[in-house]
Amino acid sequence: MKELLGKIVSVNGDFLERAQKRLDSLTKPLGSLGRLEEFARRLVAITENTTPVLDKKVIFTFAGDHGVADEGVSAFPKEVTKQMVFNFLNGGAGINVLARHAGAEVVVIDIGVDFDFGTAGAYCSPRRIRPCADNTPLQSGGHDNKLINKQGRMGGLFISRKVIMGTKNMRKGPAMTREEAERCINVGIGLADEYAKKGYKIFATGEMGIANTTPSSAIAAILTGKSVSEVTGKGTGIGDDALRNKIRVIEDSITLNKPDPKDPVDVLSKVGGAEIGGIAGLIIGAATNRIPVVIDGFISTAGALIAYCIEPKTKDYMFAAHNSVEVGHKAMLEKIGLRPILDLDLRLGEGTGAALAMIMIDAGLKIYKEMATFGEAGVAAKNQT
Amino acid sequence: MKELLGKIVSVNGDFLERAQKRLDSLTKPLGSLGRLEEFARRLVAITENTTPVLDKKVIFTFAGDHGVADEGVSAFPKEVTKQMVFNFLNGGAGINVLARHAGAEVVVIDIGVDFDFGTAGAYCSPRRIRPCADNTPLQSGGHDNKLINKQGRMGGLFISRKVIMGTKNMRKGPAMTREEAERCINVGIGLADEYAKKGYKIFATGEMGIANTTPSSAIAAILTGKSVSEVTGKGTGIGDDALRNKIRVIEDSITLNKPDPKDPVDVLSKVGGAEIGGIAGLIIGAATNRIPVVIDGFISTAGALIAYCIEPKTKDYMFAAHNSVEVGHKAMLEKIGLRPILDLDLRLGEGTGAALAMIMIDAGLKIYKEMATFGEAGVAAKNQT
Repeated sequence: MKELLGKIVSVNGDFLERAQKRLDSLTKPLGSLGRLEEFARRLVAITENTTPVLDKKVIFTFAGDHGVADEGVSAFPKEVTKQMVFNFLNGGAGINVLARHAGAEVVVIDIGVDFDFGTAGAYCSPRRIRPCADNTPLQSGGHDNKLINKQGRMGGLFISRKVIMGTKNMRKGPAMTREEAERCINVGIGLADEYAKKGYKIFATGEMGIANTTPSSAIAAILTGKSVSEVTGKGTGIGDDALRNKIRVIEDSITLNKPDPKDPVDVLSKVGGAEIGGIAGLIIGAATNRIPVVIDGFISTAGALIAYCIEPKTKDYMFAAHNSVEVGHKAMLEKIGLRPILDLDLRLGEGTGAALAMIMIDAGLKIYKEMATFGEAGVAAKNQT
Repeated sequence: MKELLGKIVSVNGDFLERAQKRLDSLTKPLGSLGRLEEFARRLVAITENTTPVLDKKVIFTFAGDHGVADEGVSAFPKEVTKQMVFNFLNGGAGINVLARHAGAEVVVIDIGVDFDFGTAGAYCSPRRIRPCADNTPLQSGGHDNKLINKQGRMGGLFISRKVIMGTKNMRKGPAMTREEAERCINVGIGLADEYAKKGYKIFATGEMGIANTTPSSAIAAILTGKSVSEVTGKGTGIGDDALRNKIRVIEDSITLNKPDPKDPVDVLSKVGGAEIGGIAGLIIGAATNRIPVVIDGFISTAGALIAYCIEPKTKDYMFAAHNSVEVGHKAMLEKIGLRPILDLDLRLGEGTGAALAMIMIDAGLKIYKEMATFGEAGVAAKNQT
């Protein structure tokens, strides 16, 4: 791990300057495309390529269950994690719709769902349209088990990388062992490596896991230093009483497990979740492969904060997709030093905000690559004022 | 005009409710897709169609010159208006890139450029790739003078609807006559009618006109009641001295021409611009045709404010694309009661922010139409909490 982290370097400022020089030659007032220009600059610097491409995009939706759901912290029953995995595979979820809109593929990773999807990662959706064989490992380039749903629309690809059958209830003890937490991170790193090799140019993170705003708030509190009540919200829509209970559950869990704020893996294992570890690993892997990674909302940002605390240089490879409705998101983004791209009152997760943000990042790159320069267009430059 | 305005009705709340009912049946926590849900609801209500389509999208970029440019209010020379029109037609401008990204066409309207593009609206670009014939009127469905640029990318369609050869210098007298201002509004209404008949489902506004933040700030000050200095910014990038001069020029123009804040057409004629009038008309025409219209940034919003003051019900058909860097934009959006969709530090105009916002509106509609319901996906509904 140490060797791997050593490979992560801050982006080279020269590339930022070279990109800005081209942006400044385009037929528009200097800097007038604001953040689109920032996205283009950063893509150039991340890839160290003055004409980067974003042709292959992938959103990783990590799924995991949470023992703490037993404490009544979520508005939805635990079975919904598994049910939503099937929905992702069938192409009917929000992330499927928005990934298609963004021209991105969805990969659904069972990293910790409390359900057996079958041997060797095979799955069998109750509503699948086409038969699917077992999940041949990706690196073989073999069987591709993408599903096409009834409307002829693409669903997600299933990958089994199960580390645990859900976390344990953190109010009664650590969510995972340290070894399990490390394996979750390694799953993310492995996926980043695989998809980099397969030629994907931009990653996004997403997740599914009933109750997972609870570990995310715990992580936020510990790693930002804020109080639990400052970073805990209503998740998928609990009432005021349930929110008070949720805060108490998180406080109890922290008191019991005593996670060390200086040790992000300890925090992840004691009050985190498998999908959060997978996201942290994916980001670390993105950074080692010089691939931009779009961080979705609250839970994804908890994963990003773990990655940032493990190696702060990972920040240079992150794009914060949006400003979640979930209170506590802002504190984590500020801690990392990221400014969100969108602010659309989203609080769904799955990677939905990241899919939309990918479209904006793509727009920045197109501006950079496709606009005419003042010289090419025969447009007069600025007056001296 | 009065008869036309009488056709504009507020959207029917029943359709908003019907759309929300479907949104609430989809596999996501209630309301968790935030503003995407708002966009879908509003599209259903605007079109009074529970399965609206947005297959044909068009951005109207109105171009006009401004006599007040002689007062040194802009960072760019006046010739740039004409030069940028050619750039739009050749597909090299920011709006071309972002319209292609959004799957929208660009229509460039010469409503008041101080340049003769040729008889009968024919144009001849210095860099055009394919010969173009004269601009056969659109309603004939005849000649389509879209250009494909050197990279094989689509440029804009040119339409001549010239009302004036630029406004007069408003520091010395009215920018236009009342009759000219009315003709500009009618150009916009006519285009909306034509494009509605041609089957376009969503409109966006854009503009090009060196110095046009100056009349826009004048309109903002008069119709919001704010002081000129509160609503005047640096436009394409003038210095502090030039900004002080710009504020003085606007104050002088208002003192001299005494526009009546209760009479938006009077305001448009005395301190406005041809492209701003065209935008106001396009919005009125969109509302009479029940077509959603996306308002770009500062200058477009000045046009939208004129339309709103003529008939406040037009507001129901407007989407505010983004929060411009230009100070004064917010005051106008608040006056109309619109919340911007994006906040990306844009200040280019042309319709660039509107193109990006169209993509988000489209995302909202896709969510509404493509997501699976709880029943379809076999996902458990929410617990009682």
